[in-house]
Amino acid sequence: MGKIIRVNLGLGMSKYEKIPKEYKKLGGKGLTSQIIIDEVDPVCEALGQRNKLVIAPGLLSGTNAPSSGRLSVGSKSPLTGGIKESNAGGTAARALARLGIKAIIIEEKPSDEEELKLLLINNTEVKLVSAESVMGLGNYETMAKLREKYGSKVTIMSIGQAGEFCMATATIAVSTSEGHASRHCGRGGLGAVLGSKKIKAIVIDDSHVTNDDHLAQIVDLPQYREVAKEWAKEIIKERASLTKYGTTVTLGFANEIGGLPTKNFRYGAYENADKINAEALRNTMLERGGKAGHACSAGCVIRCSNVYNNVDGEYLTSGLEYETIALFGSNLCIDDLDTIATLDRLCDDFGIDTMDTAGAIAGFMEANIISFGDKEKTIELVEEVGTGSLTGRVIGQGAYITGKVLGIGRVAHVKGQYMAAYDPRCFKGTGISYMTSTMGADHTSANMIGKGKWRNVHKPDQIEGQIEANRDVQYITAAIDSLGLCIFVGCVPVAMEYSAKLLTAMMGEKISSDDVIKMGIQNICNEIKFNKLAGIDKIHHRLPEFMEEEKLGPVGYTFDIPQKEISDMFDEDYSYDIM
Amino acid sequence: MGKIIRVNLGLGMSKYEKIPKEYKKLGGKGLTSQIIIDEVDPVCEALGQRNKLVIAPGLLSGTNAPSSGRLSVGSKSPLTGGIKESNAGGTAARALARLGIKAIIIEEKPSDEEELKLLLINNTEVKLVSAESVMGLGNYETMAKLREKYGSKVTIMSIGQAGEFCMATATIAVSTSEGHASRHCGRGGLGAVLGSKKIKAIVIDDSHVTNDDHLAQIVDLPQYREVAKEWAKEIIKERASLTKYGTTVTLGFANEIGGLPTKNFRYGAYENADKINAEALRNTMLERGGKAGHACSAGCVIRCSNVYNNVDGEYLTSGLEYETIALFGSNLCIDDLDTIATLDRLCDDFGIDTMDTAGAIAGFMEANIISFGDKEKTIELVEEVGTGSLTGRVIGQGAYITGKVLGIGRVAHVKGQYMAAYDPRCFKGTGISYMTSTMGADHTSANMIGKGKWRNVHKPDQIEGQIEANRDVQYITAAIDSLGLCIFVGCVPVAMEYSAKLLTAMMGEKISSDDVIKMGIQNICNEIKFNKLAGIDKIHHRLPEFMEEEKLGPVGYTFDIPQKEISDMFDEDYSYDIM
Repeated sequence: MGKIIRVNLGLGMSKYEKIPKEYKKLGGKGLTSQIIIDEVDPVCEALGQRNKLVIAPGLLSGTNAPSSGRLSVGSKSPLTGGIKESNAGGTAARALARLGIKAIIIEEKPSDEEELKLLLINNTEVKLVSAESVMGLGNYETMAKLREKYGSKVTIMSIGQAGEFCMATATIAVSTSEGHASRHCGRGGLGAVLGSKKIKAIVIDDSHVTNDDHLAQIVDLPQYREVAKEWAKEIIKERASLTKYGTTVTLGFANEIGGLPTKNFRYGAYENADKINAEALRNTMLERGGKAGHACSAGCVIRCSNVYNNVDGEYLTSGLEYETIALFGSNLCIDDLDTIATLDRLCDDFGIDTMDTAGAIAGFMEANIISFGDKEKTIELVEEVGTGSLTGRVIGQGAYITGKVLGIGRVAHVKGQYMAAYDPRCFKGTGISYMTSTMGADHTSANMIGKGKWRNVHKPDQIEGQIEANRDVQYITAAIDSLGLCIFVGCVPVAMEYSAKLLTAMMGEKISSDDVIKMGIQNICNEIKFNKLAGIDKIHHRLPEFMEEEKLGPVGYTFDIPQKEISDMFDEDYSYDIM
Repeated sequence: MGKIIRVNLGLGMSKYEKIPKEYKKLGGKGLTSQIIIDEVDPVCEALGQRNKLVIAPGLLSGTNAPSSGRLSVGSKSPLTGGIKESNAGGTAARALARLGIKAIIIEEKPSDEEELKLLLINNTEVKLVSAESVMGLGNYETMAKLREKYGSKVTIMSIGQAGEFCMATATIAVSTSEGHASRHCGRGGLGAVLGSKKIKAIVIDDSHVTNDDHLAQIVDLPQYREVAKEWAKEIIKERASLTKYGTTVTLGFANEIGGLPTKNFRYGAYENADKINAEALRNTMLERGGKAGHACSAGCVIRCSNVYNNVDGEYLTSGLEYETIALFGSNLCIDDLDTIATLDRLCDDFGIDTMDTAGAIAGFMEANIISFGDKEKTIELVEEVGTGSLTGRVIGQGAYITGKVLGIGRVAHVKGQYMAAYDPRCFKGTGISYMTSTMGADHTSANMIGKGKWRNVHKPDQIEGQIEANRDVQYITAAIDSLGLCIFVGCVPVAMEYSAKLLTAMMGEKISSDDVIKMGIQNICNEIKFNKLAGIDKIHHRLPEFMEEEKLGPVGYTFDIPQKEISDMFDEDYSYDIM
């Protein structure tokens, strides 16, 4: 049961393949990375013939496991040059799981003359058809047109103009149950890889299957359901503030302790933070008939997403997250939620990473081309992305290349990927993630903002224990990402225990929480190897110089965890030793 | 005798230093690279506080050794991220040698508020003064104004607008004896490093010293002069065609065998080659009162440089080389020498590498923004560089970044530096240089276009023996570059023998040709180590994919020297075994 779809654009053909034995217990990030490692030459050009794009639902996706609807997409990244996995909510993971599709492998490239295509997948066939009707359109219009044509129950994964232009920060949008283009595999330019293969969208129709086939693979379904329910209850209790306020709940805390990126990572606190914080957001949304506590994927029990309407009460955007608000907000000195929501909508529509885009705009501000806080000009610049103008193409390359082009050195990136909204001088644990993650400056590889959860790490800015705790969390997060779980189920020991119970019920063989963690270790270990072969090694685990040279005001933080310990943290044979 | 000048822009101060014992026998590239290795953190940001720029005349510069007037400038490159040395003719090497200055080390950076400076050097002092009068000017006007102010006998090293904008392909211009800004340390963005330190120009006044002091260090001067004269005679005989036609003599040969870059490295032959070849160039120049057989540096016996006048017989440019003619010419399908000479002049004036600029324009043509062969639009695009417009800034980042921004994969680069005008599929030995050089795709590291000179390599396109021959030539070239000799004195055994005789006479101790070669081996070996620590290793020794995938028409060449042998060619403990 279950299959892999292999789509070869060189041949213009697709086929079903059996799942190799070694892939049976892999899913999500574990599987996308493993296939990339097995099939892609690490030195290949990311937008060339030899790179592949792999799509995989998590191992638990399509079941009632809490918040298990994450879809992983993997490839060699045109942004970082290393391996990349980016995951998103939306309905794709569930749809693919229900169709018994363990992975889609998209390989080779069509000739220059070949037109843009749609990949249509349902329970009986896979085919490539012309994408002429949606060519050049943004994700919102693309999804609307495709739903019109293929029915409102289909799931759509698409690229906007940014992906068609092969911009290094182009995303792959995944439709929500309402058909919005607001969930994205956002980081590292996976949309450019899909664009380089001339696929505009993947239309997944699972409306003709029931859950039965997919659930039939769960050996002890009653037990599985029971464990899932029990865990869901715990998560709901634990994550109440996320449900109420969404991810922006972090903004007030970050501002308070002095780690909120402000004015291109110059300061850690923003005087107008209260205009863009979680309460301001919630109040604005609810006043206008928007939503808080919205599920990004079907069956999510945390529901940290949201719907943001404009002043007229019309839908503007959804999934407006902390990262986007802080990096377009405090970091650009923009204190207006409507502006930020508009920018988020533009990014979603063009299909471009909000974080790297905000970082690129920070570059234009740093170079005095526009002023910090200039809302109108910021919107105008981001609008350029959709036109494919040279300005738009520079921005579409992300913050690092924009900084190079503009001749400015103050760019908050690691390995070419822009940092998330945690200044590493304050959030030191997250700083270690930025530096050492196989993905570039990726906060989701191990976001160390909690208190007292890991070993003896009680504060984001403490030095002791951060490296050990970070390594644990990177391993556990990798396991979570392989299971298709949202990271907000908690990168905590209890999550490993529940996961183990679910897998035991699913597989019909005893799986321990250590086994689950080993899944994460194996994944990280393999990704590190791939990156080494691609020429990315611990030498590249570095913060930008300005962060080493400047104290972060007003608190005066410095990043004071020894570089050498960080560089070497994955050397000891990927050892694991938790709690 | 002799000294080092250290200029610290952080402190705004300079001082003389004694020459450390270990540097006594180093000069040119050997010395610039050694100082960079000793003083610069390989992981530093090239345009940051921690990088340094080192200027050094060759070990034989300032003497009558034939064609010994090359000046080396070294740094960590903002283009490749690795170590960089770029050398040029002009009068600087001789002037510095006569002043007893073995090296200038420029370090740290001034604050953002600090204004652009001139560095004035004469026989009694070194000082920094305001550069306000030449700020924003091109190299030609800068040099003219500074000669007006400081006298027509001074040597000027300057940056144009590109260096001020910190563009990654900005050059450092070195004035000729006529005061033209036509000789450049052209590759790898050294002008951006000088610009990042806010130095617009270095004015070197050696008019108050005689040769006596400098020559006094030569232990056996009569013998030295005798050897130099004898060698000069041989070189003159050997290099007659270079004197007559200049470096463009290569164009006809490259076209004939099918290795002349044409239409963005699509073909190896150009239908209109006869309009831009060496004879066309010579005839055009001489008709208009220009010059062939012009010396790029004082005392050069080869005199392969030239002076190109416009149709009205007025000076347009000089030092119009093969690389520039082929990369702006056949590779862009431009068959007009006046256009190419205009482009050369613009590049010299803005201070930007002609090769990487031509490669950037190839990107605009590849992306269909302008057409192949469009002379006017090519000139318009290059003019953007001087304005600092976004288009100009993209071009100023060179071909690799331009390709990224424009979303095209067909970029003929290695490690971010554009290839010279030898398609590696035909000129396989030069291809090995592109791939393995510490400098990125640098033909001067070992230009294997000769016939029958090295081991058993008789043709550019043969496979056997290329790796061994290339390694030898890289070593020897490094020695030549350290002595301040032009590579056209011949990277041949006899050059090592004459060099050894000259050094023996100079030092008063027996120096063998093996000792000279060891100087080159040591240099390459140390540069490889620096690059490893900077994160650049043999994994990065690769041609772009399109060159692996496509045959080079019309002959049908493929690059068929095994990748692994190339990757490993410097592994065997930098062994050396010549002839």
